[in-house]
Formats: sequence, structure tokens, C-alpha cells
Amino acid sequence: MFNKFLDKPREACGIAGVYGLPEAANLVYLMLYALQHRGQEGAGIVTCDETGFHSIRNSGLVADVFNQDKLASLEGTAGVGHVRYSTTGPSVERNAQPIVVEYCRGNLALAHNGNLVNAVELHRTLVQQGSIFQTSADSEVLIHLLARAQEELFIDALAVCLTRLQGAFSFTLLKDDALIAGRDPYGFRPLAIGQLNNGYVIASETCAYELIGAEYLRDVEPGEIVVIDQQGLHSHRFSAQPSQEALCIFEHIYFSRPDSRIFGDSCWEARGRLGKILAQENTPPADMVVPVPDSGVCTAIGFAREAKLPFEMAIIRNHYIGRTFIEPSQSIRDFGVKLKFNVIREAVKGKRVIVIDDSLVRGTTSRKIVKMIRQAGAQEVHLRLSSPPVRYPCFYGMDFPTRQELIAATHSLEEIAKYLRVDSVAYLSQEGMLAAMPDQQRKFCRACFSGEYPVEFSGRDEMSERKVETKRVDKRRISQV
Amino acid sequence: MFNKFLDKPREACGIAGVYGLPEAANLVYLMLYALQHRGQEGAGIVTCDETGFHSIRNSGLVADVFNQDKLASLEGTAGVGHVRYSTTGPSVERNAQPIVVEYCRGNLALAHNGNLVNAVELHRTLVQQGSIFQTSADSEVLIHLLARAQEELFIDALAVCLTRLQGAFSFTLLKDDALIAGRDPYGFRPLAIGQLNNGYVIASETCAYELIGAEYLRDVEPGEIVVIDQQGLHSHRFSAQPSQEALCIFEHIYFSRPDSRIFGDSCWEARGRLGKILAQENTPPADMVVPVPDSGVCTAIGFAREAKLPFEMAIIRNHYIGRTFIEPSQSIRDFGVKLKFNVIREAVKGKRVIVIDDSLVRGTTSRKIVKMIRQAGAQEVHLRLSSPPVRYPCFYGMDFPTRQELIAATHSLEEIAKYLRVDSVAYLSQEGMLAAMPDQQRKFCRACFSGEYPVEFSGRDEMSERKVETKRVDKRRISQV
Amino acid sequence: MFNKFLDKPREACGIAGVYGLPEAANLVYLMLYALQHRGQEGAGIVTCDETGFHSIRNSGLVADVFNQDKLASLEGTAGVGHVRYSTTGPSVERNAQPIVVEYCRGNLALAHNGNLVNAVELHRTLVQQGSIFQTSADSEVLIHLLARAQEELFIDALAVCLTRLQGAFSFTLLKDDALIAGRDPYGFRPLAIGQLNNGYVIASETCAYELIGAEYLRDVEPGEIVVIDQQGLHSHRFSAQPSQEALCIFEHIYFSRPDSRIFGDSCWEARGRLGKILAQENTPPADMVVPVPDSGVCTAIGFAREAKLPFEMAIIRNHYIGRTFIEPSQSIRDFGVKLKFNVIREAVKGKRVIVIDDSLVRGTTSRKIVKMIRQAGAQEVHLRLSSPPVRYPCFYGMDFPTRQELIAATHSLEEIAKYLRVDSVAYLSQEGMLAAMPDQQRKFCRACFSGEYPVEFSGRDEMSERKVETKRVDKRRISQV
Amino acid sequence: MFNKFLDKPREACGIAGVYGLPEAANLVYLMLYALQHRGQEGAGIVTCDETGFHSIRNSGLVADVFNQDKLASLEGTAGVGHVRYSTTGPSVERNAQPIVVEYCRGNLALAHNGNLVNAVELHRTLVQQGSIFQTSADSEVLIHLLARAQEELFIDALAVCLTRLQGAFSFTLLKDDALIAGRDPYGFRPLAIGQLNNGYVIASETCAYELIGAEYLRDVEPGEIVVIDQQGLHSHRFSAQPSQEALCIFEHIYFSRPDSRIFGDSCWEARGRLGKILAQENTPPADMVVPVPDSGVCTAIGFAREAKLPFEMAIIRNHYIGRTFIEPSQSIRDFGVKLKFNVIREAVKGKRVIVIDDSLVRGTTSRKIVKMIRQAGAQEVHLRLSSPPVRYPCFYGMDFPTRQELIAATHSLEEIAKYLRVDSVAYLSQEGMLAAMPDQQRKFCRACFSGEYPVEFSGRDEMSERKVETKRVDKRRISQV
Repeated sequence: MFNKFLDKPREACGIAGVYGLPEAANLVYLMLYALQHRGQEGAGIVTCDETGFHSIRNSGLVADVFNQDKLASLEGTAGVGHVRYSTTGPSVERNAQPIVVEYCRGNLALAHNGNLVNAVELHRTLVQQGSIFQTSADSEVLIHLLARAQEELFIDALAVCLTRLQGAFSFTLLKDDALIAGRDPYGFRPLAIGQLNNGYVIASETCAYELIGAEYLRDVEPGEIVVIDQQGLHSHRFSAQPSQEALCIFEHIYFSRPDSRIFGDSCWEARGRLGKILAQENTPPADMVVPVPDSGVCTAIGFAREAKLPFEMAIIRNHYIGRTFIEPSQSIRDFGVKLKFNVIREAVKGKRVIVIDDSLVRGTTSRKIVKMIRQAGAQEVHLRLSSPPVRYPCFYGMDFPTRQELIAATHSLEEIAKYLRVDSVAYLSQEGMLAAMPDQQRKFCRACFSGEYPVEFSGRDEMSERKVETKRVDKRRISQV
Repeated sequence: MFNKFLDKPREACGIAGVYGLPEAANLVYLMLYALQHRGQEGAGIVTCDETGFHSIRNSGLVADVFNQDKLASLEGTAGVGHVRYSTTGPSVERNAQPIVVEYCRGNLALAHNGNLVNAVELHRTLVQQGSIFQTSADSEVLIHLLARAQEELFIDALAVCLTRLQGAFSFTLLKDDALIAGRDPYGFRPLAIGQLNNGYVIASETCAYELIGAEYLRDVEPGEIVVIDQQGLHSHRFSAQPSQEALCIFEHIYFSRPDSRIFGDSCWEARGRLGKILAQENTPPADMVVPVPDSGVCTAIGFAREAKLPFEMAIIRNHYIGRTFIEPSQSIRDFGVKLKFNVIREAVKGKRVIVIDDSLVRGTTSRKIVKMIRQAGAQEVHLRLSSPPVRYPCFYGMDFPTRQELIAATHSLEEIAKYLRVDSVAYLSQEGMLAAMPDQQRKFCRACFSGEYPVEFSGRDEMSERKVETKRVDKRRISQV
Repeated sequence: MFNKFLDKPREACGIAGVYGLPEAANLVYLMLYALQHRGQEGAGIVTCDETGFHSIRNSGLVADVFNQDKLASLEGTAGVGHVRYSTTGPSVERNAQPIVVEYCRGNLALAHNGNLVNAVELHRTLVQQGSIFQTSADSEVLIHLLARAQEELFIDALAVCLTRLQGAFSFTLLKDDALIAGRDPYGFRPLAIGQLNNGYVIASETCAYELIGAEYLRDVEPGEIVVIDQQGLHSHRFSAQPSQEALCIFEHIYFSRPDSRIFGDSCWEARGRLGKILAQENTPPADMVVPVPDSGVCTAIGFAREAKLPFEMAIIRNHYIGRTFIEPSQSIRDFGVKLKFNVIREAVKGKRVIVIDDSLVRGTTSRKIVKMIRQAGAQEVHLRLSSPPVRYPCFYGMDFPTRQELIAATHSLEEIAKYLRVDSVAYLSQEGMLAAMPDQQRKFCRACFSGEYPVEFSGRDEMSERKVETKRVDKRRISQV
Repeated sequence: MFNKFLDKPREACGIAGVYGLPEAANLVYLMLYALQHRGQEGAGIVTCDETGFHSIRNSGLVADVFNQDKLASLEGTAGVGHVRYSTTGPSVERNAQPIVVEYCRGNLALAHNGNLVNAVELHRTLVQQGSIFQTSADSEVLIHLLARAQEELFIDALAVCLTRLQGAFSFTLLKDDALIAGRDPYGFRPLAIGQLNNGYVIASETCAYELIGAEYLRDVEPGEIVVIDQQGLHSHRFSAQPSQEALCIFEHIYFSRPDSRIFGDSCWEARGRLGKILAQENTPPADMVVPVPDSGVCTAIGFAREAKLPFEMAIIRNHYIGRTFIEPSQSIRDFGVKLKFNVIREAVKGKRVIVIDDSLVRGTTSRKIVKMIRQAGAQEVHLRLSSPPVRYPCFYGMDFPTRQELIAATHSLEEIAKYLRVDSVAYLSQEGMLAAMPDQQRKFCRACFSGEYPVEFSGRDEMSERKVETKRVDKRRISQV
């Protein structure tokens, strides 16, 4: 995977759902296609008609997993879908989403985006009670909780089960007669409701609606369960008192597409303001502003405009990089980052360059990009980041490394500049970051910057233990073909 | 599948197991290869080493499912394998065996041969308690029973679970530290233990041992659990008082390879004796004895010798018939059975021919073969069958149709002869059949001939209901890719 | 390939053709299916309709290469097909047949069975003149000769080109408006014409007609070109004076299916007579006659009847051996021949066994079979062969090894018996062999027995040189995917 | 293919070559990867070592066609490669490049970029002389000319053959002992020489060198043959008197990557200047400048800077669009262009927008993009094009449609604006375009703007006839799998 050449924060997955629309599979397909940036490892769609559930899941890009025949076989007017960002490993197939099962109440398909902090504990309890898990995905615990729930009504069972989950979760759930969407009480991950003709659509980001011509209605609220069935759309709450929301600010900074509305606001607007405030906070004398594409582009435009410096696309990104790329040889060194980026020599030669990136995690990729810019002849390189220093791990769905690997957790600004070989490096302040958000009423999770996690969960210190345990489970895992 | 052109009794599956031998996967592979005649729909191997379980399963022939790389990836000194005869359908992949799961006690892989008559009932109960099934295979109920069993020791849990199963089952079961083999109290299906160097092997038929150079030790006894681990081979009984055995006599008549010992006796010897007694009971004047290959060959040789008539291989079987054959066109009629068989015109022209076949189920294939012999110029065609009339369905693993479709259940001998367009047809008598068995002490199930089922199980009359239910389940089933 | 476990004479290829029949591809498919025993390495069909030629070729069995969709894409009422026995190697794909080209007169597809002794010489000349070959198949020279032929009429051009070919060739050739079949002046390889409704079919063996319901008309004569077009069937001769025919007698002894008519006569009848005369010539005292299946069966029945000894199918052949078998491990020894054959212990234990096989080439497989029979407990093993000693290489299409590798060329009978570890070995005499042929008027090639080749061709001594050259070409060959 | 949603000028292919470097296949692979934008339909690499030629070619992206094992199988220190832009159709496989043959002088592999205007004529002559073509690619005529050339020295033969070719051609040619690169006398298509350690590399664009760390030496000159062998690099001329060069200016405007040097000059610089002059020529009052990504980006930055207007990336391009995309349904309308582009509503709402694109061919895509911008709420939309009106077809490798389909050939500016529904549309003038080129000494082909073709070739009027003929050939073409 080309992602190994990057050290960006990366989140797991995009999800979608459709109810009450002909050719639901085609609509889910197009929405997943628009959400492809949220996960390139695998894709899956499950639909439902009167004959049962139909499921196709595989590793690869959306456009590779499906073709016309496959889509045609996914019959029905309701469906859910999933694009997956995932760790590599032998169990890729086994962990395909949506998870689909037949259980006591009928069929279920679950597409999940997020991270449960008590998944291991719940998993352990369920297994001891005789449950047999099909995947190693966190989200399968919800399925087994549902299979054992005694409440007569499904919605009651679901509400009870969701209160047992701790962490970040946005999900779409297909049952024989309804589409359900839900979001954890803190609302870490986005989830939006749209309308198309007489039906409803659900997606992680609103850019999915543009493609299919749907209209954005509103977000699924933190702590809300939305049930869509033949009677229409019904709202339930599983979280009695509303928690304070803790939206993931990296959705605006990095994850989402700039043409999406995230948590109700324009991601494009947020990025432009991040760039503007970043420029206000610290602009070195320079000849040009250059983004690391694609995430840095909107921010860099905002920066350049505020700084009254020329904006240049001097770093070219090669978009043809395939999902199946295999490192061709050890003897051709350091081409990793070059496969993805190239610097236009003529643009930077002899110039003082401000490079705009969204964040710094390990710093390894940034270091290589800086090296390329220097080799292309730049006189000075200044790195400006549109987020504060990331110093703490994320337990809510971002694939940050451990603290030890976070460069900002262990190095001073001078040390970082030295490591990256830049003339200067500067982060956006936390205050500046928050000030850049379009809606100043919203509350964001700042755990990765401050270490103040939005909720104390049993055993955050155990999390290290958990990683050990996860490995143990993985070691025993069953490799299948 | 070419089997659709046949109406033979067909049984589900061959199984194998290995413990304590290097390259266990290779040994399982070779044994499955020798057991290929028991199932051509799919094959699977699961092995176990200190890193966990390794599994490869797919549809197709053994030689197609595996290759050198795949076998090499199945590391470990213990393993189980399965070849499957199965109904066609969309859930082929999902029902691949061995079933492999991770549950509260560790990993399990189950390869099963037989048919549980109370599978639907047990399945329903388990699902209501919150179990989620991965397959629609009968045998998965054993897995879920085990996952919920409270007995401290695995062997106790297994024994208790097995007593809840009703019907025919021979199985090999791989756990993290042992290979287990078991057989139902009636011993419907065969299962033999062999020794190779310092390890043990288990297989449905002893012909599997010839290929790998193992030695036949003994059968797994009806009602016995055999545990093979680092301490050696241990025998347990889960059935307190031994039931009277009820071996499936069609193993000798049709299923098994003639070079196997089945239930301890030579299948080749049994077939020769079946032919001899069949000739003694009823030999019409004729010019030659011709077997329907391959199952009729040994029997026909015995018949011809006793009848002092020339033996001729006048029906040629095309063995290249592929697993993926697709009927090329409706416009070329009746070539179905011709794909498998052809008659040598010069051999039968103007001759009175006795055709030896093992059994008559629907009679459709025999009718086509008779037609081919007549078209080749035979003067008379007499059909002799080395089994009595099959008049009742089998609930213990043979794929007989319903009573209404069994020609002998609904037609007289004269009607059958007329339908088949033979000059005469005669069955072997039940007494003659039993007299042909090499060991006269063994007891065989004769339910399909007599309707006397070896044990009254709750709701044999429900079985028709069950088929309805099975269909309902199938209809709701999840089609996956 | 499993053939590596055998050392039988093996011939290259079966061919077929259809003209004037709807769904020509389906008919060619079924005929190839019936000819599968002549080549299991690859299969191909080319059809022709008004839009051009349609071609599908691949390695593998007929039933694996084609499926319903592929057959449906091969539109048209005329077609040719090919099953290939071939040496292994990287250029398998490249040498797929039928060869199909577009040249100055239109499209051509050629399916060829045989061996040209002057192919290298012709190839060299054509390449020097600027021809670019697409394959390393001998038969492509015919294509290039045709492309350069100046005769105005195609039939004249073809006749002239064929006179330049030396060696064995039977072929079907599809052009835009006709199907053409031809056979070399000696008639080494068989080729038969059949009729179906208003159209014609061509096949290597008549067993192909049984499957599709066609009727055998006559053979393509040695030196004849048969043109089938909208005006019907026309016969031309390219060989002015008829050569004395030199039919390959191994077609009767080994290659063909016993239900085929070969060179106009029944192969089944020939084999029975071979067995009868073999018994007359030399029958040792014994308890039973056992064939090496499948080729030895008809012969062994004839032998047993004449010798008044019991016939037993004591060697079981496993027909599920796949085309893709990969030797699973070096540590499980000598299972090669066991994959294909197994001996029924109970049948041969303590018995004196006569084993009937068709021929002895290297003797390596026979040696392993004998070893298996001895290990199964046989008291004596006598090998009888239904052909004379093969002492000379074949230049006309049989895949015999060099003289040095032919055991009969370098060893006495006693030495052979000792090598094979048999109690006795005996060959059929040349006179006996010829006396067994159904039609005593036919003339057969006996070159492999006597070294008297039917025609002196320039540079038979060069043939060794040729093998060197072939290798050189191969070494430089282009490996493609 | 997604390209069907676009109506850009598109050129056929990128080519590469390596000589004298270990792991030549890996280097070619990386260069093709960098040239991927020149063709996404197929990719191929041929290498050469002492055992012969090794070839892998397939449809798809470079990263999909090759993997580590395949690259490892392409042994040798010399190789050529090709990425193909091509028309769709059944003969995709057959026309894979590099073309690789064995001919009288040994092996040859040819990777070709361009278009021969006399290909049909040469093809016809060669076929009449007995040549058999393997592909329908124009470039195969060179192979057959070489196979028939009588000159003793290869270089003489090549020079003579090249003089017979008319049109645009840049090629790399691998023979057993040398790598050869050549370019037509007008130099329509670029081709550059680079150095890496002790070896040489050849590529269509210099961006290929950045990835592998090679250094740009110089271009292959128009009319030059460069031979690279163990003695080093030798230059030959096949065109006696140098023609006036006629470089394709669309390489700078659209085809090439901005980080490439093309015809020796910086593409990035050219685009910035095109934007600058375009702004000088005609800038309407507006609020922002928006590029159609990716080709319009550098130009739009230059425009915005000169016009002192804000630059915005308000059109988002989805880069995950797969090569295998299949239109999912007719019922979801007009999503074609939406799959590739989306407009950021918040950016353009209520704004006067100048959209920068490189050219206008049919205008269909531009019309859809304009519609999207309007639907997103823009107040005004002004389209500015960085090339003059394209009014004449290209016979030198650009995939322009016929004159009738070129919107500028048949419509006035007002009509175009009306069709596109823009408030204004303006083209760059020819003088402006030429003034933007970095090196004012270079001569460019302007045929598509002016209809003045750089050379009169026999039968330009026949070109329409040629299209008919091509279709005829295609109709008769052989479809293969």
C-alpha cells in the first residue's frame, strides 16, 4: 500500500446507506465512490430485497470491486456500504465490511466507522458466553450483543446494546425491513442524512450526495438512532442526557473532502480559514507558498492570500499510484515518496519556499518531501502546519501511532526543524485552529493535542495492555483463503 | 455439474485428519486426492501450528483447489481435510468445509461426513439463544454446542454435545493441541485410523492410506471418540450402552473405492460376491455381461465368471468430464449422458447384453444408457442390479430423492422394465445382498430397502416439514461473494 | 502434468472441424471433449461468421477452457478446433492452436495434428525471406507458405504448399468461406469425415461423432484435400501418384478410444484381437489377467478369454488427477505413480498375475507398477505387451524418446525382465500385431519397430542436429504473458 | 473507461527504454509509472538477457499490470516499455505494446508513440507480399519492413525503413545487443535521453527521470537514430537534410506533466506563461479564477496572478476513478462528469467565476462543468482557453475527432458561448500561444489550428477513405482471448 510511504493521520472507513430507492446498490456504489478517500483497502455493499440479503465485498478500490454484473446482482431498494482503510495483514478478507449475518431476528448488515475502546472487554465476555466471532472487527460485538438481547422490540434492544459501547462509532445497519443509522453520544465521526426523491440516503460526508443528486437534510445527532422504514424516518435517542459533543477536528483539517459539509459546516471554508490564521500567526519572509497536495491545497491558498505571497503548485502528486503497488527493488533507493510526489525544479530553484501541510505525525514523509525540494534547488524551506502539535494517541478512530512515535511528543520545535532539515517549522495554535472553525458553537475533541480525552473510560491505561492482547488474538487468528 | 446427468445414490463427503507428522497439509492433500470420488464439489484443508490455524477451502477438485504455494502456506504437523459432494446453489462458498472458528477454548476446525436428523431443531434453539451461524451446514450446530458447553474438560463437553446429535456423523476435529475423530453410535459412515511413522492418520476410506504409505490400524468404533495428542491415542465413548450398529451397505455396493477396506472388509471382495450371487439368483440367456463403469465393473466381473458369460467393457466412460462443464446448448439434444458414456457399437451389435449396475434410483440415467445400447444394435438388453429395490428415503447421508421419485417405490418390476425399455430387469434380493458381505457378523442399515429405520427419531414424519423449513432458510439466506 | 509419471508413447493433438451447422462452436466443443484423450494440455476453437473470425484458446482441459459465455461468443456456422498434447514450457500460450491469422487472402485458422520433418528447413527459409513467425509450432510454416503463394486460386496454392511439406500431417483449415481438411500422402494420422443434418463435420476419431449424433461418411484419404463450402464437399488430390499408405499402428494399439473407428476399422476389435494373438503367442501359467488401465483393458479381456484365465481389474486408476497437479513434497516418496494407480491387495495376494500393457518405452512406469503389485502380495508377475519392441524413434508425431532411452533398443529381454523385476516379459510379434488388424489390406508404418521409415527424407541423420537447433530456437524464444 | 466522459485531445502512449543497468525491468517500470498520464489503457515491458527476450503486457494501469514476481521474471540489463492510450474494442489484447517478434536477424521489441499517415498503404503492400501481421498497430509495419530489408547492417536497414514511414513517430527498439531510439524528421512527439550511473535511459518525458534519479542529457533529435550498445551511445541520421521541426505544441498545453522538460523546455514555465498571456489578452471582470484540474492548474495560477484575481481550486477532481469503471445504471442520469469533477458550492456561490481550461474539442464536457458551476450558485461563468480554436484534425497522434465534431470548426464564438451556457468564452491567440513558449527558436506544428500541415503527404484527402478502410479491417479482425 502506498500509505506506507506516508505518515498522515488516517481514519478507518466511510459508510453509506440507502432506503426506499430503486437500484439501491447503484446509489450506494456511487456514494462509496465519492467516499473513496476515506478508505482504499476494501469496499462492500449489502442490499436487501424480499428474497434476502445480497452481499459483495472485496479488497481494492470501489471501481475495482464492483462491475455492472455484480451491481445488478445486488437487488433491492435498501442497502448499506462501506469503504475501508485498514491495516494490512492476512485477515483482510475475513474483516470485510459490511458485516452480514443471519441471527434470531432475521438478517443484519452493519457498516461501521470508528473505534470502540471497550471492544476487547466486550468481545471477551461474549466469547466466554459461547459467541463465535466471524471477524476481528471491533464492530462485530454489536452484532453479538444484538443476537443476545432479550428486549422484545428491536429498537429497544439496539438502544440497550449501544449504551454498552464506549468510543467512537457512526454506523449504518440494514435489517430486513429498515435502514438504521446511529452515532455515538460524543459524535466523534460525521454522519449525514440526505433525501432523494421519496427515499433517504446516509453517508459519512455530503460529497456523496452531490454525485447522486441527493439533498442534505441534517446530521445524525450524537446519541441518536435514526430508523428509516416504510413509515418514514423516526428518531430515537439511546443516550439519556446528551453528552458534550467532541467532534474530531481532523475531519476539517485533513480527512474530509473540501466539497463536503462536515458536522454541518463547509470543509472548504474551514481550510481556507485555517490557512489564513496560520499565515497571521507566523509568516516567514518567502517567495512562494506551496501545498503538499491534495490536503494542503485549500489551506495553502488561504495562507498565500493572507500572506500576499505567490501560490504555486510546485509539488506534483501522481494520482495513478495503484493499490497493488509492490516495491520493485531494494536497489533503487528512496523512491517511495517519489512515487507519489515530485517537485517542479524550475518553480522552486533559488526560491524561499513555504510548504503547507496539515499535520506532522512521525515526520518521515515530510522529511523526504523537504529533501526533494532542497534537491530541486530551493534556497530556503519553511514548513507550516495547519494543526497544533499531535502529542497524544487517538482512541477514537484515527490511526495515530503510539506516543513514542509522535515526533511532537518527544521533540522540541528546534529538534523537529533539525530532523526535517527545514529553515523553520511552525504549528497552528490550538486557539487559532478553533477560531478557524466556521461554527464557533461546535465543540471539538482535542485529545490528540492536549491529552484531555473527552470521557474517562475504564482502563485507558490498559490500552497498552489491549494492544498486547490484540496482538495475541491476531497471532492465534485463523488465516483463510 | 455432471452429476446432474446421473441418478445414483450419492453421499456427502470424504474426510481426513493427520497428527504428529511433518508436512501435515501434504498428507491431508494426498488423502483427499484418494477420496476425491466421495465429493467433487469442493475441498478444504485446515492445519495448525504454534502460530494458529491455517485454512484453504474452495470449490473444485482437490488438484485444482491446491497448488504448491498454497500447500506450503498450510504449516504445521496436524490438520484436517474435507472433500464435499454438495447441492449446487449460491451458498457454495459459504458452506465450505472444514468449518473453522475461534471460540472460547481456542481454535476449532471440523470436517464432517453424514447427516443430522435433528439439525434444524438444534439450530433453531441455538439461534434463539443468540448464536450466529456462519454456514448452513448441519455440522455447525456441533461447533455452537461446544462453544456453549459448560463442562470444564473439553472431552466431557464434546461427549455431552455429541449425545445431543441424532443421525449419521463421522468427523475429524482439529483443536490447538489435538486431533479428534468420532463416529455416531450406529456407525453409518466409515472412518478408519491409520499409522504412519510416529504419527496417526484418519480417513473415510483406507485407499487414502495406500497413497501415503500409512498402515491401517482399525476403525473408529461407533460411539467412540478418539483423541490423538502428544501423549498418543486415547479412546473415549460418548454413547453409554453400545447401540446395534447400522452400517450403510451402499458403501460396499457403490460409494467406496474397490481398493478400500470399508468397515474392516474388502470392498473388492464384497462387489465380486454381489456379482456372483446376483448371477446365481437370475441370469437370463445372453451373449455378454457389460458393466456400467466404474462402479459396476467388479460386480460384473463376478457376475460374468459365475454365469460363464463373456465380460465386455462395451460402455466407455469419459473421465475428462470437467467440474465446470456448462451445457453448451439446448439445440443439441440428449447429449447429457453421452458426455459421460459411450457404447462400443461393434461390441454389442446383434448381441444379447446383460448390463450390470449397482442400483436404480429414479431410473432416468439407466433409461438413457439402455437407449444407447439399443441404438448401437444390441438385440436384447437385460438389466441386473447389485442392490435390492430402493423404496425409502435415506436420512443418514445418502442423497436419495423423496419416495415419490424413487422408481421402485411407485412402480412394479414390469413397469420398470417397460420404462427402461429393457427385455428384463432384476434386483439382487436383500438376503443375497447380505450374504455377499465378507463378514457375516456385521449389521447393516436396510432402511432404504425396507423402511425400517435403525432408530425412531423424533419427527421422522416432520422430515417433510423440515425440507420446507430448509427451503425457507435457504430463501432468506445471504448470498455472498 | 501427470503425464510425467508415465512413459507411454504419446501423440500430439486431436483436431475437429464443422461446416454449415448452427452453433458450430458447440459442436466443435463437444467433439474436442470426445477427443480429450488425444491432448490435455490445451484447447482452442476458432469460428467464422460474416463479421470475421472468433477465437478462444487456452491451456487446460476442454471443459475448463470454455464456458457457456465463451462458447456463445464464438458465433458462426463453421469452425475448427484443437486439443493439444504438448511439451511443457514457457511458450505454452504462444503455441496455442488453432493458429489464426489475417493474411493477403483473408482470415485463416489452422488446426494441425502431426509432425513435419522438414519444418526447420522451411522455417529457416521463410524467415530469411522476411516472414515473422508467431509461434514455434511446425504447422505455422504452412500458413507462411500460403501467404507467399502466387497461385491465383486458393486450392492451387494450398496443393503446391502441401507438396513442400514432408512428414505426418492431418489438418483442418478454416477460411472465410470454406472448411478444408487434408492428410499427408502416407496417411500417418487418422482423419474422418462425418455428416450431420445438412452440414459436415471432421474429426481425428469417430468417437467425436457419437456425442453429437453425426454419421461417419469416410476417411479423408492420404494425399487428399477436402473442401467444404456452400456448394458442398469437393475432393482434390495434391499428391499426384498415391504413395503407399503408412498408417500409424499405435492408433489402434494405444492412442485411440476403443469406441472409435480408426482408418475405417474398429479399434475395439483390433485390441481384442491383439490380446487374443498375444495369448496365443505366449501365455505363462497364471491365476489371473490384469490390465494396466485404461488402454490395456480391451486387450486384457481378449487375452484372458483366449487364455481361459480370470480377468481382474486389480489395478485401479484414479481419474480425478488434475491437470494442475503440483508435486506436493519431496519428503513423501514415490507417490508419483500411486497418484494414478493403486493395486487391490485382496485381488492379487498370493496370486500369479499376468499384467497386460500396450507398450514399453522407457520402462520406468511399468517398473513402478510391478513394484506395487509385488508389494500387494502377488506371488508372480508376468508382463505381456500388445506391441513389438519399440527400438527406433518416431518422426511422425509420436513423442518417443531418443533411441538411447528406448529400453528395447538397448536391453535384451532378460535384462528388461530383470530391470522391471518381473518373472517374465514378452512382446507381441510384428506378425502377430499385423495379423490382429481388422482389415488385412491396410498398410501400417512399422518404423519404430524396424527402423524402416516409410520414406527417405533429406537428412534423417540431421534429425539429431535438428533437435539441437530446436533447442537453440527455444533458448532464444520470447517468453510472453 | 472514464475518458469517455471527457473530450480532451488525447495522445497515444508513452515510451521508455533502458540499457546497461541492472534490474532494467524495475527502471522501465518506474519510468512507465511516471508516464502513466500518457496512457492508462495498457502497459508492457520487454527485457533482454542472454537467454532471450522476456515480455509482459496487459491492459490496465502500470501498477496493476506488474507485480514483484512479474518484474523479477523480466530479467536483463536492457529493456523497453510502453503505456498505451487506445481506443476500446475487442482487439485490446492483440494490440499490446511493445510489439515483440523473432525475425531473421534475431529478436526485436518495439515501443512506439505517434501515428503513421501511410501505415495503411505500407500494410497493404506488405500483406500482398506475404507478410502476416500480428496486430493492427500502425507500428508493426516497421517490423515487417525490417524483416524484409536486404541491407547487411542493421543500422542501414533501419535507416532505409524509417525513410519509408510518413507521419509522427518516436520509438524505442530493443534488439539482442542494443537499445535504439528514433524520432521522425519533424519531431512531432518528444523523446529524451537520460543517464544513470554507467547506463542510459530513454523516455517520452523527463519526469520519468526524476523517479529513478537519472539525469537529462538531451533530446533525441528529429531525424536521428540513437544506438546504445556496449560501445556506448552512437548517433545516426536517417533523414539526409533536416526538415523544419514541427513540435506538437499540445505537449506543452495539455499532454505533458508540468514537472517535465518537453522539447528541452520547462512545461511548468510554458503553462504559467500561457496563463499570463491569456489574462493579458482578455480578462473579464470577475471574483475568482478556477482551473479545470489537473491540466488547467498551472495556467490558472499564471492567469490569476497576472489578472490580480483570487485563485481558487473550486473544482475538485476525484482521482480514485478506476480503470474498470462500468456505468452502473441508466436511471441515474448525467453523473458521468460528476464522477470525475465536483464543484465546491461555498466557493462559487454568488461569484463571478473565470474557468481556465486548456482547449475545447467537442465542448460536451465543458458544457457539463459549466452546468455544475451554475448549479452551485455562480453568478457568472467565463471560460478562458489556453489554446487557439482547434479547427482541423490531427494526423500525427492526437485523438481529435473529425472536423465535423470540432466545435470551433463549425461554430462562431457566440454560438459556442451559447452552447456552453457561459457568459463569455475566449481563446488564446496563436501569436499569444507561440509567445508563451519558453524557447522562441523552436518551431511548432499548428496544423490543428490553421490546417497548414507541416508536410504534404500523399492522400491527405484519402484520410477519410482510410478511416473507412480501417473500419473494414476492424470488421474482419480476429477477436481473440
